[in-house]
Amino acid sequence: MRTFECDYTEGAHPQILEALLRTNMEQMSGYGADPYTARAAEKIRQSCGAPDASVTFLVGGTQTNMIVLDLLAAPFEGVLTAETGHINVHEAGAVEFTGHKVIGLKHRDGVLDVDALDAYLAAFYADATHEHMVRPGVVYLTHPTEYGTLYTKEQMLRVRALCDRYGMKLYVDGARLGYALGCPENEIALSDLAGLCDAFSIGGTKLGLLCGEAVVFPKDAPKHLLSQVKRHGGLLAKGRVLGVQFDAMFTGRLYEAIGREAIRHARRIREILLSKGYPLAWESPTNQQFTILSDAEATALSKYVGFDLWGRRDAGHWIARFTSSWSTTDADVEELETALPQKTALTE
Amino acid sequence: MRTFECDYTEGAHPQILEALLRTNMEQMSGYGADPYTARAAEKIRQSCGAPDASVTFLVGGTQTNMIVLDLLAAPFEGVLTAETGHINVHEAGAVEFTGHKVIGLKHRDGVLDVDALDAYLAAFYADATHEHMVRPGVVYLTHPTEYGTLYTKEQMLRVRALCDRYGMKLYVDGARLGYALGCPENEIALSDLAGLCDAFSIGGTKLGLLCGEAVVFPKDAPKHLLSQVKRHGGLLAKGRVLGVQFDAMFTGRLYEAIGREAIRHARRIREILLSKGYPLAWESPTNQQFTILSDAEATALSKYVGFDLWGRRDAGHWIARFTSSWSTTDADVEELETALPQKTALTE
Amino acid sequence: MRTFECDYTEGAHPQILEALLRTNMEQMSGYGADPYTARAAEKIRQSCGAPDASVTFLVGGTQTNMIVLDLLAAPFEGVLTAETGHINVHEAGAVEFTGHKVIGLKHRDGVLDVDALDAYLAAFYADATHEHMVRPGVVYLTHPTEYGTLYTKEQMLRVRALCDRYGMKLYVDGARLGYALGCPENEIALSDLAGLCDAFSIGGTKLGLLCGEAVVFPKDAPKHLLSQVKRHGGLLAKGRVLGVQFDAMFTGRLYEAIGREAIRHARRIREILLSKGYPLAWESPTNQQFTILSDAEATALSKYVGFDLWGRRDAGHWIARFTSSWSTTDADVEELETALPQKTALTE
Amino acid sequence: MRTFECDYTEGAHPQILEALLRTNMEQMSGYGADPYTARAAEKIRQSCGAPDASVTFLVGGTQTNMIVLDLLAAPFEGVLTAETGHINVHEAGAVEFTGHKVIGLKHRDGVLDVDALDAYLAAFYADATHEHMVRPGVVYLTHPTEYGTLYTKEQMLRVRALCDRYGMKLYVDGARLGYALGCPENEIALSDLAGLCDAFSIGGTKLGLLCGEAVVFPKDAPKHLLSQVKRHGGLLAKGRVLGVQFDAMFTGRLYEAIGREAIRHARRIREILLSKGYPLAWESPTNQQFTILSDAEATALSKYVGFDLWGRRDAGHWIARFTSSWSTTDADVEELETALPQKTALTE
Repeated sequence: MRTFECDYTEGAHPQILEALLRTNMEQMSGYGADPYTARAAEKIRQSCGAPDASVTFLVGGTQTNMIVLDLLAAPFEGVLTAETGHINVHEAGAVEFTGHKVIGLKHRDGVLDVDALDAYLAAFYADATHEHMVRPGVVYLTHPTEYGTLYTKEQMLRVRALCDRYGMKLYVDGARLGYALGCPENEIALSDLAGLCDAFSIGGTKLGLLCGEAVVFPKDAPKHLLSQVKRHGGLLAKGRVLGVQFDAMFTGRLYEAIGREAIRHARRIREILLSKGYPLAWESPTNQQFTILSDAEATALSKYVGFDLWGRRDAGHWIARFTSSWSTTDADVEELETALPQKTALTE
Repeated sequence: MRTFECDYTEGAHPQILEALLRTNMEQMSGYGADPYTARAAEKIRQSCGAPDASVTFLVGGTQTNMIVLDLLAAPFEGVLTAETGHINVHEAGAVEFTGHKVIGLKHRDGVLDVDALDAYLAAFYADATHEHMVRPGVVYLTHPTEYGTLYTKEQMLRVRALCDRYGMKLYVDGARLGYALGCPENEIALSDLAGLCDAFSIGGTKLGLLCGEAVVFPKDAPKHLLSQVKRHGGLLAKGRVLGVQFDAMFTGRLYEAIGREAIRHARRIREILLSKGYPLAWESPTNQQFTILSDAEATALSKYVGFDLWGRRDAGHWIARFTSSWSTTDADVEELETALPQKTALTE
Repeated sequence: MRTFECDYTEGAHPQILEALLRTNMEQMSGYGADPYTARAAEKIRQSCGAPDASVTFLVGGTQTNMIVLDLLAAPFEGVLTAETGHINVHEAGAVEFTGHKVIGLKHRDGVLDVDALDAYLAAFYADATHEHMVRPGVVYLTHPTEYGTLYTKEQMLRVRALCDRYGMKLYVDGARLGYALGCPENEIALSDLAGLCDAFSIGGTKLGLLCGEAVVFPKDAPKHLLSQVKRHGGLLAKGRVLGVQFDAMFTGRLYEAIGREAIRHARRIREILLSKGYPLAWESPTNQQFTILSDAEATALSKYVGFDLWGRRDAGHWIARFTSSWSTTDADVEELETALPQKTALTE
Repeated sequence: MRTFECDYTEGAHPQILEALLRTNMEQMSGYGADPYTARAAEKIRQSCGAPDASVTFLVGGTQTNMIVLDLLAAPFEGVLTAETGHINVHEAGAVEFTGHKVIGLKHRDGVLDVDALDAYLAAFYADATHEHMVRPGVVYLTHPTEYGTLYTKEQMLRVRALCDRYGMKLYVDGARLGYALGCPENEIALSDLAGLCDAFSIGGTKLGLLCGEAVVFPKDAPKHLLSQVKRHGGLLAKGRVLGVQFDAMFTGRLYEAIGREAIRHARRIREILLSKGYPLAWESPTNQQFTILSDAEATALSKYVGFDLWGRRDAGHWIARFTSSWSTTDADVEELETALPQKTALTE
């Protein structure tokens, strides 16, 4: 049975695997000092229109968030995020492990409420005791968000303006960035991220790499970056494994093509869900589609197709997630269409 | 002009100072290995009816919370607290500095909403991804709370029951504990804390010590406690300074007497506020009394008497705090009564 | 030009790559909850004769040391190691990042001096102030060591006995373990490690994986291991990448075969070095061979063959390292024999 | 029986206590925002000839070292110290608790060997793998050292020059600084420290305060200092307790007078030791005097006078410490002279 539970259920995109195979026996220096890593970084700089950017490759998403935030924030600074932000909910306290408070603010379908951010900062600095409080040092956004939603350019510009006003850094977690870039509705290009952020990541794991996230510091790279990454346990001996994969991913615009194709599938999944009577929990333009199921419906549906019980909506109801990815095929979606019963039939 | 801004504006209670003077030239070993520290610990054990308790003395409140929570929680565990809890708001991230996430839950006038705690824990363990989340390890309560309010015994028993059910520790921050013990409404005696908590603190600084908080571990003291305190920078070379003060404080029930007397003054402050037209922001049975002032009223009133602009109620209004303490005298309260204008007169 | 600089200059062993290819499009759950990870763990348990062991897979060596030591040691405990230990020298402070002091002791060609360990512990506990010192919690050994040398069984038994006497844990870093297992001189089998250690690692990266280290806790696995690994940024979304590789590595005794073959090459490298007049810096029975070169010789030799300037022996002399690995072929060694000039010819 | 075991066996110098008494009932703001703290800081700036220095007051010595080093060092930087340095031996890992490696170098009677420092740094930066090693960020010196010895001005200038050459900070731990300043042999005045250091402490606890260390940042104070101190658990609510004491200590040159007087006593203790046949373990010009005793002698002598078994010299011999302090009187020293038997008589 095909599962649509998440976007990392398979290994790697064929072109990625092929690149690993092709370069396998080439002798290269370790720790990222190989030509593929250099080339991948250069291609990403070009894709971002950021010729002076520092580009580094890390293995996983939580690791990336933990390291980047620890490098951007002064030791005594905290990180502001939507309360639904991955770092606040699903990283087992990795950011706090590095000593930083994560401060959750209001959100709307996963998008940080910029008014709430504005109000928080105004209140913070108006408070006579704020030296006893955790200083906001970095704003963390995910794009797409955990809800599959996207920031508008205006929202991101407002966040940047607040960062400038209050001396904060902006970091965008792009674990699923390719699925934003593949969206017609997306207003934030790689070059926008390079212009607006102090750092952002370009997720590889969920876009078809065995593993790997690229981190871009458009302007000022942290000092002694390799050393700091190693100190956090994030330096890969065979850095080539990341370099070769990202080099392939940014060759011939593969990254964008993967995103676009997955979004095409997601649109069909959305239509299939709606046509079979499954209401959308909210509108998501990206590769994750969310519907609402009662407990009984969830149990019944799980016999037909694999999906993710993403979270509780309330006692008695689940939010269920159907995800497309780099590995989704037309046949998969057709299989879904065939397998998915009318929602009303689930509990008959 | 007399100020009622907080309960640590003076030095030490005369009997405390006297004890420091009297013992000043006695030669004693350092780091708490002196007879006064031993005696103070023994008196506290007796006051708590906890003959096997471990009692330790630390210098300050944030230090105490940071150390005790770091010792109670496994490294990967987080701390649950009312979102208004001191550790969540006013300790500059000291708990996160030690690697623990602080998770803020709903409150009612500073009292942790036990239903919200219950719901949080039920949802946490029902969540299939909870191994990716921060495990709740300790519940942190303040008694009295930051709002001057008190837990009922029933509330605290319910929290304890939840701790038992979910394998958590309970820590009560008693930075102002004496002002609870001095309250007729208080339902939580020292012996109750010893029976219910894994650790609690008995605050000295706000009750008339130059500095010092006692920490009680009723049952299982953390291993190598002295070493762990030192590692956190909390071990005082002249441990006698804390031992002598607490020994005096727990001689002849001084601690309770101080609390009772301050509460008597707080009751009169409350009456004075009400009689002059200052509404209570909420009912506080302890030594902190809160009223609401418009910005203009706050400015005007500050010419008559010292108080604390405790926090914003909304745009345009402050919550103002008037505090009694071990140092408050009848004359002080009379001075307040004389100085305090009718609220209506403030902005005429 | 062939380089013998280290044992991670190529990608992955063909059988490893083949397994990744073969399983690539199978849909599996993430975070190690896949059948290949389970199977790899089971095979390792069998290889170790430790049916109750917990086996976990991590990405890199420094990450492994950082996480395992942080989980074995109480927060206030330090780690004892030969002063040449990888964690003490070449991990950029990753262990200290997690709050533990690393205490370096005397060594002999990279082997911790067990007498020095014994003396350190005796002196520590005889010191009346030892509660002010960092408590020794874990002994860290590498096998093979950074010098390519091996512990004797007697040495390791003595270390274990000291751990038992002083309530410490024993962790063996096996980043190059396969190259010990492939040695006729090696006295420490996997089952010995399982019997003696509280944890040990079985390195994959240097034995022919793209990345990956297995961690074995023979008896008591740390609680909430997945959660703790995630908190340290070490949890891989596509855990299969590690599971599939280790499953292949422990199929048909590939791990041992790789080690044996590399040792065969190392012996020939050793003979070639000696026959051409290059003295051994010390005897190493494993895959790293060390010789001494003057600065001028090092410069001259680097035109003929790739090797590692491993470290300074003194002003004017280098210790140079030649390494065999899973990827070394007879042809490589023959090429070395041909390319390597007589040492005396280097500076003529 | 009088004990000379250490310099913190009594409470506070009478003038310090008197200042606390005199100011006890003055109402002041907390957290160091009181006039006495401001005045003490100003007096210290004047004493140091450093009108722009930032002066802060902390409670204890380990706390001071932990906080200052964590603020001076970048998160990934380590601290270089004599291997005998207090932070390396007797602070229970407080510096590592904040994530920094402490790197011990050779010493001579407690004085960091500047040649060894020079060699370490040269080797570090010559090492091609130094990005995998802990970057040296701060040099930590104690003055006087743990052995009672003093740096010469030339030594300290050389250390400063190395700091400048390698981009490091210099911190001098002056827990016993007053006893250096009181020495005719001392070449390092407060103004020298202000000129050479990035930070230094002026110890109060061992010079006659109940508790308290002043920290001076001559040039660039760390940002948000109060907030950072609080985050480390080091902010005292009644900051006045430190301000009032240091204000008294720097009034009428009391600090220097105390030091001078204690040194006068130490000289007599030294003469008494020598005249009774007790050899000096090494020459110490400050308030700590060290002699060598066999185990039997140590046991015998402890019946006549209190002293500290400072450490093992070898199996069978102790180094014993006799300390003068602010509280030592002529009568005390005379008592020592009377009580101390000829060494040869000890084991007869």
